[in-house]
This record gives sequence, structure tokens and C-alpha cells, in this order.
Amino acid sequence: MTYEMMKTSKGITAAPGIRVSVAAAGLYAGRDRDDMALIVAPEGAVAAGVFTRNLFTAAPVTVSKAHLAEGDGAFRALLINAGCANAATGEPGLSDAELCASTVADRLGCAPEHVLLASTGVIGVRLPMDSLLAAIPALASELHAGDANEAARAIMTTDTYPKETAYEVTTRSGSRYTIGGMCKGSGMIAPDMATMIAVLTTDAVLPEGRLQEALAKAVSVSFNRVTVDSDTSTNDTCILISSGAGAELTDDELDSFDEALVDVCTELARQIARDGEGATKLVDVVVTGAVDEADAERAARTIADSPLVKTAVFGKDANWGRIAAALGRSGASFSPERVDISIVGVPVMEKGRGLEFDEEAAARGFASPEVVIEVDLGAGEASATIWTCDLTDVYISINADYRS
Amino acid sequence: MTYEMMKTSKGITAAPGIRVSVAAAGLYAGRDRDDMALIVAPEGAVAAGVFTRNLFTAAPVTVSKAHLAEGDGAFRALLINAGCANAATGEPGLSDAELCASTVADRLGCAPEHVLLASTGVIGVRLPMDSLLAAIPALASELHAGDANEAARAIMTTDTYPKETAYEVTTRSGSRYTIGGMCKGSGMIAPDMATMIAVLTTDAVLPEGRLQEALAKAVSVSFNRVTVDSDTSTNDTCILISSGAGAELTDDELDSFDEALVDVCTELARQIARDGEGATKLVDVVVTGAVDEADAERAARTIADSPLVKTAVFGKDANWGRIAAALGRSGASFSPERVDISIVGVPVMEKGRGLEFDEEAAARGFASPEVVIEVDLGAGEASATIWTCDLTDVYISINADYRS
Repeated sequence: MTYEMMKTSKGITAAPGIRVSVAAAGLYAGRDRDDMALIVAPEGAVAAGVFTRNLFTAAPVTVSKAHLAEGDGAFRALLINAGCANAATGEPGLSDAELCASTVADRLGCAPEHVLLASTGVIGVRLPMDSLLAAIPALASELHAGDANEAARAIMTTDTYPKETAYEVTTRSGSRYTIGGMCKGSGMIAPDMATMIAVLTTDAVLPEGRLQEALAKAVSVSFNRVTVDSDTSTNDTCILISSGAGAELTDDELDSFDEALVDVCTELARQIARDGEGATKLVDVVVTGAVDEADAERAARTIADSPLVKTAVFGKDANWGRIAAALGRSGASFSPERVDISIVGVPVMEKGRGLEFDEEAAARGFASPEVVIEVDLGAGEASATIWTCDLTDVYISINADYRS
Repeated sequence: MTYEMMKTSKGITAAPGIRVSVAAAGLYAGRDRDDMALIVAPEGAVAAGVFTRNLFTAAPVTVSKAHLAEGDGAFRALLINAGCANAATGEPGLSDAELCASTVADRLGCAPEHVLLASTGVIGVRLPMDSLLAAIPALASELHAGDANEAARAIMTTDTYPKETAYEVTTRSGSRYTIGGMCKGSGMIAPDMATMIAVLTTDAVLPEGRLQEALAKAVSVSFNRVTVDSDTSTNDTCILISSGAGAELTDDELDSFDEALVDVCTELARQIARDGEGATKLVDVVVTGAVDEADAERAARTIADSPLVKTAVFGKDANWGRIAAALGRSGASFSPERVDISIVGVPVMEKGRGLEFDEEAAARGFASPEVVIEVDLGAGEASATIWTCDLTDVYISINADYRS
């Protein structure tokens, strides 16, 4: 490790230059809560974004992608609302989104294409534009660089706690920069709540194009390796903002930035899995010994998405038969007679056959809020981890009752 | 339609030549129930089989595939047990399965490769061979051609009712044959219960190779289009037996056989979906207007596997946003602005945008035990249907408690 990371406070405002504000626009009828957040960076800031691949792309995603492209990544502001996804709303939804962006741009005195948008909430409903537009002047005038926890709270839907983190990174050459992040999602994969939004900030300055590269790489091994219920949302959005307040990273330091960004994204991704709808446990599915990383990911994801594995974890049952069955249908290459499986550190399958195992040790392991499932395919050297949670009766009641 | 089908009774014994018997071998400790079934056909009978593609193939599947290949499809008997899947049991499990087959063969005076096996139950546990072998003499001596309902009951695991059907088919030329079937599975896709077994019988005689062809084709559009929870079992087995007691089908009649077999398999497949673990509703997901059938199936399957769609059905919520989001990630080709969606006959999305719809009409539709979700992708002419069920708190409790 050629750098040091020190946990710091303040979340996304840990990065110098980033300011936030929140507002209550009444998007959750009858609930007294903030539901909008504005994040602003100084002139000269840039941003990169990765977005849902769902064909039913929400209007704020379409607009944000277009703005990033038109503005060549130049960034001034990100407006987020909870309570309404502005998805499947057609042309009127796109106009609503553009009007939000231009209203923010007017207030800040910047070009509309330097404003990005993210929305989360129910699909198929228009934004309550009067309330949103009315809230923007106060959002613009109350920006501050203090604790950003209020922003992490304002963007929550079925999340049970705000999700944020921040680190100060000291490179080998002694220079420092900050990476902060916040996200929501509790169901990454709960399209009705459309759904994962992550905002990452840094003061570090990266060469042109490297910000997008760093973000895409980090997301692929962090947020994209979380599954709560295998449903990809219409609104997933992850934005990395460089405020430009820090120093330009040297080539040496760029590698450390990539690694530090992965660490921050992974920490946030695990917070999402732990807060999966109805979850009682965070589950790490670690597959090693795969032919290549894609195979490792395929195997780990199939296990993590199996409702039977997830209900077994809820039942505190070291039910390796369900893990083996999921592996067997995953499409990963392996020979069953070379597979080892451990659950909560207890070996349960060796060389493809079940072991007599210590049920009491397994019960002790299941008492922890984190459950690790380890699979060695015995087929190669590659590995991957997928984070998920257990499947419980509370998931059913949340999602059987959500819209009505 | 160039033939007539008339529902008849007796299940798999509706086909002349087929005899069955059942036994209680104590595979479910403390429960007074039959758990073994033997199905026997006369000399000269043939069978075709399709089996799980799960890499962790259960011993009875491995043995049955080998026997069918070695015996060129010649068939005398199928021995089925519930309560133990004989999966992930290694070489000893294979020896157990072979010993079961040779013991049956001895009793019937046939070659062991003319005996097939199917097991369903917990994975990773050896068969209680003493009990199984002790039951075989009585099974062989009590064979009868009467009502086969007792066999459909003996092979149940978490199924809540036995699943069987039978039809007498009259061809245009006036000749008659019978197709009967039974199956179990309640979780097709519940690997711990490893899981779907289907037995189809007919007296019709088909040209060599045509039995396997007919079965493979029928399974691909019936059993393979059921999903309870997306988990493919280690033991899935579907066997089609021709007792040889009837007449050889002419070329004209072969087409009618293919169609009649699809009807029988579809009826059984729907019985499985309706009896999905914890299910309160059978759900037909009908996708039309797809570019090709593979795309239609992909779209329908993604909707049918979505935990959010399934919990919405349980909640009697015409939540089309979740259906749209599942479609969007399915990989099927379409333009969102051409998509129409109806739920329980009520149009909820037109040309990619949500409709104000009659919530009372939807509520009336959801009162039925069958819910139809219709999607027109507006991209082509192909269609496919997937059968599933809703996802309920009872699924969670069944599977969180199963092994322990």
C-alpha cells in the first residue's frame, strides 16, 4: 500500500469545495421529512457518472447523461429528490427534469448542462413541479460546507439509516486529498423505489477522462456487486464529483486514487446490502478458485440471488445443498467433485460432498449480523465477492404493501 | 384441430399397459405417508427422458441417463422416492442408486438398464438403503392398473396436493390413444427439495427417436416455462413412457401426438405453478409482440422471476412500474415507447406511459386465483407464456424452516 487512508467525518462535504443543502418539498404526503438535496461545486469542477442500463430509463437519468456529454463533464450542481422517480413519464417527464435543471442553473448563474439530476421513488408519477420549483431558491441560498448527513437523510426512501463515508488519503509523496460519498438504496434493485443513488466527491484533480475511468472501474467491483433482489432499477445513478479544490494527482498517485475510490464505494455498497429491505443480515458471498473473474462473479451472483439461499440465512440454517444447487445452475465452469464450501467459517462441503459439521459452531456464526459464504470452485485462480442480504417476511410485507 | 381430446381418470395408469404401486418406507420420520412409487410397463415398452442441467447432478439422474443410453430407450420400470434427493452424495450415492435399480430388475426379471430412478427430498443425505430395499418386493408384487392417484401422492414433498391428468385422444382417422401424466414440485426450483419429477405415459407407439423428440419439444414449452423461484434443482426429471400397448401412430397422427403432449405437460406445469411454495395465486405472464420467441421468453421470465412483481401480486397491487422495470433489464429488444401492459385484463400502460386505470376493476381481477399479466412489446410477432406464482410470507417461513 503506497498510501494511507484515514476515516474522516462530514460525508460528501469532506472534500473541500463541496457545499450542500436540503429542503422539505412535501413529496411524502403526511410525513415531516426532508426530501430534496442540492450539491454544489465551485466553477471548474468536473463530474463523471454511471447510470442504469434498464431500457425504461428515467427522465433524470436521460437528462444527466445528456448534460454530462454536452458539458464535457463540467459540473456545478446535482439536484436530488426522493418520493418520485420521474420514470415512465414520457416527454412531459423530460420537460419537468429540464425545467428543474434550468431553474437551479438560473439561481447559481451557470449553464443548465452543468446541472445534473437524480430522482428516486414511485415510477410512473409526474414530479410535483410547483413544490419542487418553489424549494429551489432556499436550496440555493442555504448551501453550506458543514456536515452532509442531512443530505444523506433527505435522499432516503425505504432505507432505514443514512449511508455515507469519507476518507482523507495521504499519498507516499505526502500530498493529501479527500474522497467522500453518500448513497441510498435498500433494494438496489427495487424498481418501485427506483432506487440506488450514490454521490462521491473529491477535491483531487484528475487528468481529463480519468475521472470517468476511475468511477466505471470502481462501480463494477462495488455497487454492481450488490444484489438485494436482482431487480435493476430504472433510476440507478452514481456521480463522482471533483471539486477541483485540491492538487492534480501525479501518475503515481492515480493508482492510489483508483484503489481508495474502490474502498469508499465498497464501504457504501456494503451499507446498502446491510440495509436491504427487511434484511437481518449482511451476506458476503466469496467465490475463489474460478477460471476467471467473470465466472467467479457469475457463481457468486447466482448464490446471492437465490431466494432459497437467502431464506436459509434468515433461518440461520447452514444449508449448503441450496448453495451447491445454485452453483450448479450458475453457468460457471467447474467440476462438482472439486468444490469446497464454508458457511460462517464452518466447512460444510469438501470435494463436492457434504461434511458432518459442527451445528453449534454454525449457530454461533449465524448469531453475527454478517454472514460469510465461501466457495472454492477448485478450477482456477480468480475470485469475486458479491454482497447481499437475507430474504425475510419483512421484505414481503414492505413490497406487498408499498404502493397502496 | 385434427383430433379430439377427452379428459379421463386414473392419471398415468390411463395408458393401457402401465401398472403402479406405492409403499411407505419411513423416509419422512414420524409421518404416516407413502414415500415410494414403482411404475412398470410391459416388455417392449420404451421411454424418453429430459433431466436437470444443473452441474451438481443427483445420482438417480446420472444413473437414469446412463440406463436410457445403454438400453437404447427400452423401459420396464421407474422407481421414485420422496424424502431424500440422493444428490451431492458422491460415489456411494451412485452405488446406492445402482443397487436400487438392480434390486427392482431382479424382482421383475429384466435388465438393470431397463430400470430408471427418480429421487426428491433433502440434498447431501444418503438414501436409507435398508428401508428402500426392504420395500421393493412388496412394490413389485402389488402392481396394479387401477387409479394412480396414490402414486401422485407418494412422490409429494412440500406439494399441497397431488398433480395428475390424463386424456384420451381420438385422431381424425378414428384411432385412439391415451396420454396420462403426474408430477410433483412446489418449488420447481427449490433445490433443497430437489424437486420436479414428472412422469408421462402413453400406449401410443412412436417411431424410434420420436418419443425423445416429442418430449424435449413439449418440456421446453411447458415445464421449462414454470418458475417458482428461479432456482433449478439438482434432480429435475421428466420421463415419458410408451407402454407399447396401443397402435403405431401414422405420420399424420404424430403431429397430433406432439400437440396433445404439450397440452398434458402444460396442464401439469400450471398445476406446479399454482402449488408454488406459499403461493396464493397462479400467475400467467404472457408476452406478445416480441422480435422472436427467445426474446418473448426472456421478457416473460424476467417478469415472472422478479420478487417485486411477485410480492405486488401477493399485495393485489397492479404495480406496472415493477413490470416495466423488469422488462427494461430483461435483455429483450424493444422500444419503451411502444410497450403496452395489462394486468388482470386492465390496461395499465400504453405506449410506454402509465394510464389512469380503474383500481376497482383491478381489485376485482385480483380476487381471482389466477392473475394474467399481458405485455405487448410492439417489436414483432413472437410470443411466449411463463407460469409462476406470487411470493408470500409463507414461502419465507417454509424455506427458512425447511431443513431444521
